[in-house]
Amino acid sequence: MQSFDVFASPPAITAVKKGLTTCPITTMPNKKDNLRKYIRLYDCTLRDGAQGPGINFSLQDKLRLARALDDFGMDYIEAGWPGANPKDTALFEALVQSPLKHAKLVAFGATHHAGISASKDLGLVTLANSSAGVIALVGKASRRQVEEVLGISPAENLKLIRDSVKFLAKAGKEVFFDAEHFFDGYREDASYSLKVLRTALDAGASTLVLCDTNGATLPYDLADTVKEVVAAFPAGTPLGIHCHNDSDCAVGGTLAAVRSGCVLAQGTINGFGERCGNANLCSIIPAIALKMPNYAVDKAVKVSSLTQLSRLFYEVAVVREQPQQPYVGANAFAHKAGLHVAAVAKNTHSFEQISPEAVGNHRQILLSELSGSSSVSLKAKELGVKLDAKKTKMVLADLKQREAQGYSFEAADASFKLLLERSLSPQKSPFELDGFRVIIEKRGPGEKCLSAATLKVRVNGRESEIMAAEGEGPVDALDKCLRKSLTQFFPEVSKMKLRDFKVRIIDGAVGTAAHTRVLIDSTDGQQEWSTVGLSENIIEAAWQALQDSVEFFLASNHGE
Amino acid sequence: MQSFDVFASPPAITAVKKGLTTCPITTMPNKKDNLRKYIRLYDCTLRDGAQGPGINFSLQDKLRLARALDDFGMDYIEAGWPGANPKDTALFEALVQSPLKHAKLVAFGATHHAGISASKDLGLVTLANSSAGVIALVGKASRRQVEEVLGISPAENLKLIRDSVKFLAKAGKEVFFDAEHFFDGYREDASYSLKVLRTALDAGASTLVLCDTNGATLPYDLADTVKEVVAAFPAGTPLGIHCHNDSDCAVGGTLAAVRSGCVLAQGTINGFGERCGNANLCSIIPAIALKMPNYAVDKAVKVSSLTQLSRLFYEVAVVREQPQQPYVGANAFAHKAGLHVAAVAKNTHSFEQISPEAVGNHRQILLSELSGSSSVSLKAKELGVKLDAKKTKMVLADLKQREAQGYSFEAADASFKLLLERSLSPQKSPFELDGFRVIIEKRGPGEKCLSAATLKVRVNGRESEIMAAEGEGPVDALDKCLRKSLTQFFPEVSKMKLRDFKVRIIDGAVGTAAHTRVLIDSTDGQQEWSTVGLSENIIEAAWQALQDSVEFFLASNHGE
Repeated sequence: MQSFDVFASPPAITAVKKGLTTCPITTMPNKKDNLRKYIRLYDCTLRDGAQGPGINFSLQDKLRLARALDDFGMDYIEAGWPGANPKDTALFEALVQSPLKHAKLVAFGATHHAGISASKDLGLVTLANSSAGVIALVGKASRRQVEEVLGISPAENLKLIRDSVKFLAKAGKEVFFDAEHFFDGYREDASYSLKVLRTALDAGASTLVLCDTNGATLPYDLADTVKEVVAAFPAGTPLGIHCHNDSDCAVGGTLAAVRSGCVLAQGTINGFGERCGNANLCSIIPAIALKMPNYAVDKAVKVSSLTQLSRLFYEVAVVREQPQQPYVGANAFAHKAGLHVAAVAKNTHSFEQISPEAVGNHRQILLSELSGSSSVSLKAKELGVKLDAKKTKMVLADLKQREAQGYSFEAADASFKLLLERSLSPQKSPFELDGFRVIIEKRGPGEKCLSAATLKVRVNGRESEIMAAEGEGPVDALDKCLRKSLTQFFPEVSKMKLRDFKVRIIDGAVGTAAHTRVLIDSTDGQQEWSTVGLSENIIEAAWQALQDSVEFFLASNHGE
Repeated sequence: MQSFDVFASPPAITAVKKGLTTCPITTMPNKKDNLRKYIRLYDCTLRDGAQGPGINFSLQDKLRLARALDDFGMDYIEAGWPGANPKDTALFEALVQSPLKHAKLVAFGATHHAGISASKDLGLVTLANSSAGVIALVGKASRRQVEEVLGISPAENLKLIRDSVKFLAKAGKEVFFDAEHFFDGYREDASYSLKVLRTALDAGASTLVLCDTNGATLPYDLADTVKEVVAAFPAGTPLGIHCHNDSDCAVGGTLAAVRSGCVLAQGTINGFGERCGNANLCSIIPAIALKMPNYAVDKAVKVSSLTQLSRLFYEVAVVREQPQQPYVGANAFAHKAGLHVAAVAKNTHSFEQISPEAVGNHRQILLSELSGSSSVSLKAKELGVKLDAKKTKMVLADLKQREAQGYSFEAADASFKLLLERSLSPQKSPFELDGFRVIIEKRGPGEKCLSAATLKVRVNGRESEIMAAEGEGPVDALDKCLRKSLTQFFPEVSKMKLRDFKVRIIDGAVGTAAHTRVLIDSTDGQQEWSTVGLSENIIEAAWQALQDSVEFFLASNHGE
């Protein structure tokens, strides 16, 4: 059996202290000693996370994400199941060419098939030949699962596990034994589940990973079971924990397992995974690093890049970000209610558990009908606009009326800044629409759908030539046409471009005639800004957001 | 002090047993006794939940949701803060006219202002005169918060609490004291936080609600503190718990508090609330009702309507559903990976913690590139299509190719059924597009944006007349025009209509030229079906989904 010393890596005191200086911690400081137990972080987003509905990583995606996890300082990266599909096979080959710098590469696989020997099992042989130094070998740890799903005897299952672990250990691999359905099995027949662990350990597994495969176990039950397992094995036997979120307790369960003796925490970025997802490393990591005084993550872990890492995974997975996600979500440090905002203005710890910067996030003041004057004036200050008390009230009233119509400025700071500036001096927009027409045409079943826009603007009373542009879709055509028209008057407009474009149907219940809110993110290569438009008509809503975007850009350029 | 007996209501053994018969439970059965402790459920979605970013309930919304919570069997409904805004004032007046049938109505408010007496404080007087029998009175339970945010002395804060509780109790109200920042305060100065609780209790509060206002406390720390509070007060003193999800542990924390002695669980439907949200009652309720053998919810609670309740709140709040949400999400019982699907086909408990029906949800087989043949054949069976092994492989290959392009059939069963049927007999569609043109025009800054579509179809080689229709937006115009054209040939098409319409930008990073996936939900008043379209052009994507929708409707009508 290979083993690892849980104190082998120096505890990440520096990173933790940094967090502490800017914010109150949430648990009593550790008075007994300064020795914090080092918890290893094991990411399985590329394998278990990829089973999440709607998630589909390409080979290039997986390589990019593996590098990002490596740069972040993850201890172990489970990249996939070599041999199970051509993509994962190619991934492990690509990782031979340019290996990970910091993290240990892990290949996932299962115990060999009943009826053939380990050395004849194609799956095991592929694992043994893979470029990974560590193999996560999954085997069943529930007697009921063995009998009812595998359809073999409990003893035969033990033999499969023993032979598979031995085969891989002999091939020079470090074996992490993933005890599937461990907690379910333990509830049904604890002695068999322990026998499974014992078999894997004796056969040479370096770490026993206790899996709550169905996510059914509540944290205090899970903690009790972990303590019983700890007591059943020699001191120092490395245990890992693998939770799923079906009970909405995966993070609590993982942290409870750590407190009860597990030294390896498995999870996925953003909790990606089947059904309700896996335990979310984006919540586990800050808890261990910043909030559990007796525990630490490796000092290589860049906790303050966590928000960035989370957003990269959303982007690559093409999954919508969860604004309410703890620690890293856009709303995690967002304040809306008037009372709360006033309190946060006095003391940031009033409604913030940690400093947002400790996880790479930032504070946000949200504007809504619940906003009081202090929200509006704080936000105006953030945007560099000076408002007196009277103007603040006017803006607040205007804001509440627009929100009632269906506008939302929570993610559209640039539109809100224009609203502020228009309320201060109702000056004319630098350009005015004279009219546009967008035509979308499909000439037959096999034909490509064409989009073209024509448009006329007016600048200082001077009418532009009529301009036309084609695009991939109607909004693209309209955007291109607007910028083509404006370049005659404002050449700098050629520098800006759309970065993202989001469509939200506000009242889905009435079908396509519902209101549509369009959010547009723009960039000039240096700054980014977001604008909003609202209409029954998606094109009109997009037009409003485009118009605001250009106006914001022109105003900030003239201000320089 | 009023009090309540935690065993006053008969435990919900029937409902629980019903859950148990269809699925394994996840904790050891209670061997000691059959007396389950009854936990009262307290919903604060209409007040605390309404502070969530993007949430904005109208008066009518609040009334509708209060009725739904009442029908569901909630014990307490905190409807708002009368006097704080005109909407909440009107709400409490409306609830006098037609009161709740089952739940107790709760009004929220704060201790009186420093410097005036309780009886002169407009806020307290409004609470005393409100139609609510129970007042949730919030007061600060952290010495640091009192000094730094309120800017008053610790003793003065105790006086505010004492006088406010007494005033309301004298007015005949039952007072729940919400001890704000209790856990933060307890970590800093436990004796002061306990003094705050003692003051409220002595002044006449019936229940002390311990609030983890910042969501900072991890479940095991929270459990330890609750146990200390239990020990500090006379046996049977009713304690409540109010958690926020900033540590991703709100549900685990609430359940740990229940196990440690709290008898009232506060939370919101879907976890709506500021920042990362409140503790999610949709996860707390099934855990207590179905998974904690020593605890129960009132037998009036309709646990099997939970999914319905959750979706109503999403719909009314116009918040996107979280498919991965535990228990009630569309993916909570969805199976994707080939291996898992095969196991579920053998034993549903392999990857399901409870029976989906126990919470009103259902099992789903998802189709994706990870699907094996068993996923496709199970799904085909669900849709009533017979496939042999060869056809199954063909469909699987086709499916994988389309998913690689960006299609997603996970939420578009009708489009998948058409794909299945086309693979069985490549028959012609009942109609063919001859071409369409959509024009969107805005003639000037103040003008309404107009949308019109023209379209020609061909049925059995017969060309339709060219038809035109106007709509609120381009998709609406196209939908109306298509159904106008088809009614000539298929009069039954007039019965169907669009119910919902979702737009997803697949690759936001490249701006408006990104791929757009459109999902359309249609109905004929009896059944509902969903279809999908994908294109660089939103109108073309919508067209594909519309075409599939009509085709599915015609096929199922002819089959009848």
